[in-house]
Amino acid sequence: MKEQSTEVAIIMGSISDMNVMREAIEVLKQFSIPTYVEVISAHRTPKKMLDFAQSARDKGFKVIIAGAGGAAHLPGMVASATTLPVIGVPINSSNSVEGIDSLLSIVQMPGGVPVASVAINGAKNAGILALQVLATSNDNLSQKLIDYKEDLKAKVDEMNKDI
Amino acid sequence: MKEQSTEVAIIMGSISDMNVMREAIEVLKQFSIPTYVEVISAHRTPKKMLDFAQSARDKGFKVIIAGAGGAAHLPGMVASATTLPVIGVPINSSNSVEGIDSLLSIVQMPGGVPVASVAINGAKNAGILALQVLATSNDNLSQKLIDYKEDLKAKVDEMNKDI
Amino acid sequence: MKEQSTEVAIIMGSISDMNVMREAIEVLKQFSIPTYVEVISAHRTPKKMLDFAQSARDKGFKVIIAGAGGAAHLPGMVASATTLPVIGVPINSSNSVEGIDSLLSIVQMPGGVPVASVAINGAKNAGILALQVLATSNDNLSQKLIDYKEDLKAKVDEMNKDI
Amino acid sequence: MKEQSTEVAIIMGSISDMNVMREAIEVLKQFSIPTYVEVISAHRTPKKMLDFAQSARDKGFKVIIAGAGGAAHLPGMVASATTLPVIGVPINSSNSVEGIDSLLSIVQMPGGVPVASVAINGAKNAGILALQVLATSNDNLSQKLIDYKEDLKAKVDEMNKDI
Amino acid sequence: MKEQSTEVAIIMGSISDMNVMREAIEVLKQFSIPTYVEVISAHRTPKKMLDFAQSARDKGFKVIIAGAGGAAHLPGMVASATTLPVIGVPINSSNSVEGIDSLLSIVQMPGGVPVASVAINGAKNAGILALQVLATSNDNLSQKLIDYKEDLKAKVDEMNKDI
Amino acid sequence: MKEQSTEVAIIMGSISDMNVMREAIEVLKQFSIPTYVEVISAHRTPKKMLDFAQSARDKGFKVIIAGAGGAAHLPGMVASATTLPVIGVPINSSNSVEGIDSLLSIVQMPGGVPVASVAINGAKNAGILALQVLATSNDNLSQKLIDYKEDLKAKVDEMNKDI
Amino acid sequence: MKEQSTEVAIIMGSISDMNVMREAIEVLKQFSIPTYVEVISAHRTPKKMLDFAQSARDKGFKVIIAGAGGAAHLPGMVASATTLPVIGVPINSSNSVEGIDSLLSIVQMPGGVPVASVAINGAKNAGILALQVLATSNDNLSQKLIDYKEDLKAKVDEMNKDI
Amino acid sequence: MKEQSTEVAIIMGSISDMNVMREAIEVLKQFSIPTYVEVISAHRTPKKMLDFAQSARDKGFKVIIAGAGGAAHLPGMVASATTLPVIGVPINSSNSVEGIDSLLSIVQMPGGVPVASVAINGAKNAGILALQVLATSNDNLSQKLIDYKEDLKAKVDEMNKDI
Repeated sequence: MKEQSTEVAIIMGSISDMNVMREAIEVLKQFSIPTYVEVISAHRTPKKMLDFAQSARDKGFKVIIAGAGGAAHLPGMVASATTLPVIGVPINSSNSVEGIDSLLSIVQMPGGVPVASVAINGAKNAGILALQVLATSNDNLSQKLIDYKEDLKAKVDEMNKDI
Repeated sequence: MKEQSTEVAIIMGSISDMNVMREAIEVLKQFSIPTYVEVISAHRTPKKMLDFAQSARDKGFKVIIAGAGGAAHLPGMVASATTLPVIGVPINSSNSVEGIDSLLSIVQMPGGVPVASVAINGAKNAGILALQVLATSNDNLSQKLIDYKEDLKAKVDEMNKDI
Repeated sequence: MKEQSTEVAIIMGSISDMNVMREAIEVLKQFSIPTYVEVISAHRTPKKMLDFAQSARDKGFKVIIAGAGGAAHLPGMVASATTLPVIGVPINSSNSVEGIDSLLSIVQMPGGVPVASVAINGAKNAGILALQVLATSNDNLSQKLIDYKEDLKAKVDEMNKDI
Repeated sequence: MKEQSTEVAIIMGSISDMNVMREAIEVLKQFSIPTYVEVISAHRTPKKMLDFAQSARDKGFKVIIAGAGGAAHLPGMVASATTLPVIGVPINSSNSVEGIDSLLSIVQMPGGVPVASVAINGAKNAGILALQVLATSNDNLSQKLIDYKEDLKAKVDEMNKDI
Repeated sequence: MKEQSTEVAIIMGSISDMNVMREAIEVLKQFSIPTYVEVISAHRTPKKMLDFAQSARDKGFKVIIAGAGGAAHLPGMVASATTLPVIGVPINSSNSVEGIDSLLSIVQMPGGVPVASVAINGAKNAGILALQVLATSNDNLSQKLIDYKEDLKAKVDEMNKDI
Repeated sequence: MKEQSTEVAIIMGSISDMNVMREAIEVLKQFSIPTYVEVISAHRTPKKMLDFAQSARDKGFKVIIAGAGGAAHLPGMVASATTLPVIGVPINSSNSVEGIDSLLSIVQMPGGVPVASVAINGAKNAGILALQVLATSNDNLSQKLIDYKEDLKAKVDEMNKDI
Repeated sequence: MKEQSTEVAIIMGSISDMNVMREAIEVLKQFSIPTYVEVISAHRTPKKMLDFAQSARDKGFKVIIAGAGGAAHLPGMVASATTLPVIGVPINSSNSVEGIDSLLSIVQMPGGVPVASVAINGAKNAGILALQVLATSNDNLSQKLIDYKEDLKAKVDEMNKDI
Repeated sequence: MKEQSTEVAIIMGSISDMNVMREAIEVLKQFSIPTYVEVISAHRTPKKMLDFAQSARDKGFKVIIAGAGGAAHLPGMVASATTLPVIGVPINSSNSVEGIDSLLSIVQMPGGVPVASVAINGAKNAGILALQVLATSNDNLSQKLIDYKEDLKAKVDEMNKDI
């Protein structure tokens, strides 16, 4: 599935996380950044997960986005086995405590092994954060992000027409 | 370090967890159950952790006790790679949110991969729970647990002498 | 109701807990482990509860699964009167605080009397944990759990076909 | 220990709860109401606890105050076996989650079996509440409570002298 | 509205609380205890509230049940102006934080002025608690409560017929 | 105690709240705004509290600052009986749940009766907020607040000299 | 849009906040106070936000009401750049943690820069609080607020007709 | 203060945050990455903050680390005015609710404007995350991070010598 130039991997613990994680995929598509997408479960496919994390840099990935609900170990465990920046998306799944359990599991990482957490169900921002990381060495993408920020402003102006 | 007949492994994410986890070691010692003790970090030594979990049954372990603070992925990740019962001890470490973060990370496991969580800093009960599991096929140990329960009662009687 | 060889008892505080607890019953059935199921309320039938707990070992039970919502005293009180391992299932019932009240009531047991807590509404994992306990002295069951773990992996592979 | 006319029983799960529960004892002493005090543990002496609860009315008690920390099952379990009013005191013990765990365990009782919860560590108010219950059929005590309320006002006046 | 012999007053902060508080009214009716019911708002009718509280004993009330949501000051403020036992019912109203805000507002009273809190939306138990208070000087009612407890047991037996 | 021109009243539930509330007094003194300070307890002196609130406007007060811990009913009850703006200061007192109980009690007021809540222990900001309210009709004070804001900036510049 | 005499500005982070914030607009309209309403996003239009805040006093505004959900920086950031009283309305938006995240973001301001927080979704009270601030120098409005308070009482009387 | 080649800016809301933020500075120093450090307060120096954010890319910064306690608006507001990746460090300052208030303020950002949150007081990980971002286009740094990961493993081995 993965092409040579794919720099962003988006993984999630279950296919049921896709309705949230789709926003990350879409925002990256909007910026024409190819993404690799796979369901990888920390708890059901731990070896595959570690293999994925350990080989991620060699495969050419530069950023990994990992979404998970409940105990939400996926982002932290991927971070344990790669030096790439890992962005964690806490997902408010069924039987979750408003997503607070996932948020704390993802963000409260020990010293030495960071995960960059975004908001509960904040997959869109995970995508944008990945773009911002790539843009640190990509002036073209950097400019697109500046344009995107202008669009955000324009949308607020639009809102005021409805008042 | 591990001997042939050791049936309980006690692991923890950091040596700083020892002041809590010692209670598990001590209660098992009190029942003359040999234990294997090792610091294994989910986030700093993920491969070693998976290797440990995958080989745990073959090494003769019957129960694993895993203590961890903060994001506390150790118990759940060990559970991902073994079918042995895994008992998780949430540790209220520094910068923890009263240990609630560790508790939620440990207990909110997805369907298919259970962790048996005990109380925050509840290492002693983790040890007793391990004994209870072993006792399901060990009548001698079972009787000792019944005696232990009697002792608990006696201690309450003692308390009333102070009133 | 209970047969000679039944090793797992599943009790719950109210018949309304059945929609959650059914998952424990089903997973045990899937592994061909006979279960004893009864509604026993800590607060409405306390004597019956203590009698049940005190006689559980003699009746041949090896593991008890207890589900309860709200103040959720059932698992802890059963644990007070038996040395069998007790697995507690916090149930997010109506008027519950997202199930956090039940979780804390079940997991925060004092030293000496453990309850093995699983996730909020995590009855399925309670069943698997019971199987793991039984498997510590049952090689056949142990192999089935290894197969089950393989199935979990296969299901993740299935999910990736949908992407 | 208990005398004929003792109408209030004060029980607690451990002698370590005494530093909080003493305030209940003292406020009842201040009103010259004899109290029965005993350590009774729901989890270590469950049978004794049920026996205590079941016989409490026949022994002449009119109100029971029960203090407990952590999982804090004592008040609810005593309430399960008596029709006397049971006042629960959540105790913020070590390894507690700020006493919130005890509060939720005590207050979130199911329909049919009430516990009257006071504040975390609120033993003094438990004592006053017991007095208020007794005063519903004791005019002398009722008058004393009215005087006590006046004293509270006077103390606030005192405070203003320091400003 | 109030008759001579009415011993229980049930007040609530808004008519919208009635769908919860009705359970208190009904359980008292079930025991043939006449009740006085009124909407009294701590925040909208503070003077009426204080007048009600100050005159409650003289009017013959023996117990007051007060239900309130949100900031939920009604039970505590009534308690400030009467020496009668006040039972507080935290109501999980709209814009509430799962009822936790009301629970904390009601239960965390300062020393000297107790409120007896029941569970979130626990109006039924507030009613039973009021009955228990009255029963401390009413043997007939006391017997009815013992019968009620037997009924609770019988209902659990009923539940087991459905399994 | 109160002088003719005093426009700000600072009240608190107990003299023990003074160590927090002093910051409000001091910031008002710093702006040369005379303040009236009194301990008024919602729960111990409810009538005095209502009298204070009802007469506050006639006495010339324009803003009321009320600090309280635990159940923290003082700000909301004062607001119930005055149309003056009431600023509430949640105080993290002993046995408080990190001040969250006071914050929720103060801020979660029902529609129609606002309290302006500041941060937990945020008495200084309560004082500044009172100044801002007075400044809406006092240009001199308004200018002082602008100067104060400049001072805040200058202090940050100072901090950078230490780096 | 803004007229000469408009004294209250109501801003919000997104047009989706309007369904909550409308209550503030309506209560001000009910008191015939003209309002300026605009969507201003702290995160999408930060410069516009600062410009708005810095010029607010000169434009004649006396009070600013700012509603925001999630991270909810709008009220605090407006307060950073104006000395006008800023009233913050925490909005329980989608993916919010019951509005607690917004409440804490709004209320926990550092010393020197207050925001007056009202309840979660408490836009109506934000409007009334604004009126109370204006009324400190407007006797006519002050009288209307006294009448409004009488109406609140009358509505409670109405409720009692339904019992 | 800032040199030409400085790629990481570390800012914080107050000099009192330095005892936490120092860990970020130190880890970057350990990797020989020059850093720019400044106290910039969102609430006391909002204009300076926006200017800093708007000019950050042109000054050559590639990543910004922002630490803040309480309402903690600094990371989000900097993110509002730059397209650089912003890493937020929630600081458990005095009067904080265990740092949960800062965490939620920092992480719960709206769609379009991400902040990468690390753990409460997790400044060290903020530093490492910044290094990981830089390493996406710096092979030398990338190798150093791989070595650092090996060191983490070695330290766990060291810990086991003490057992």
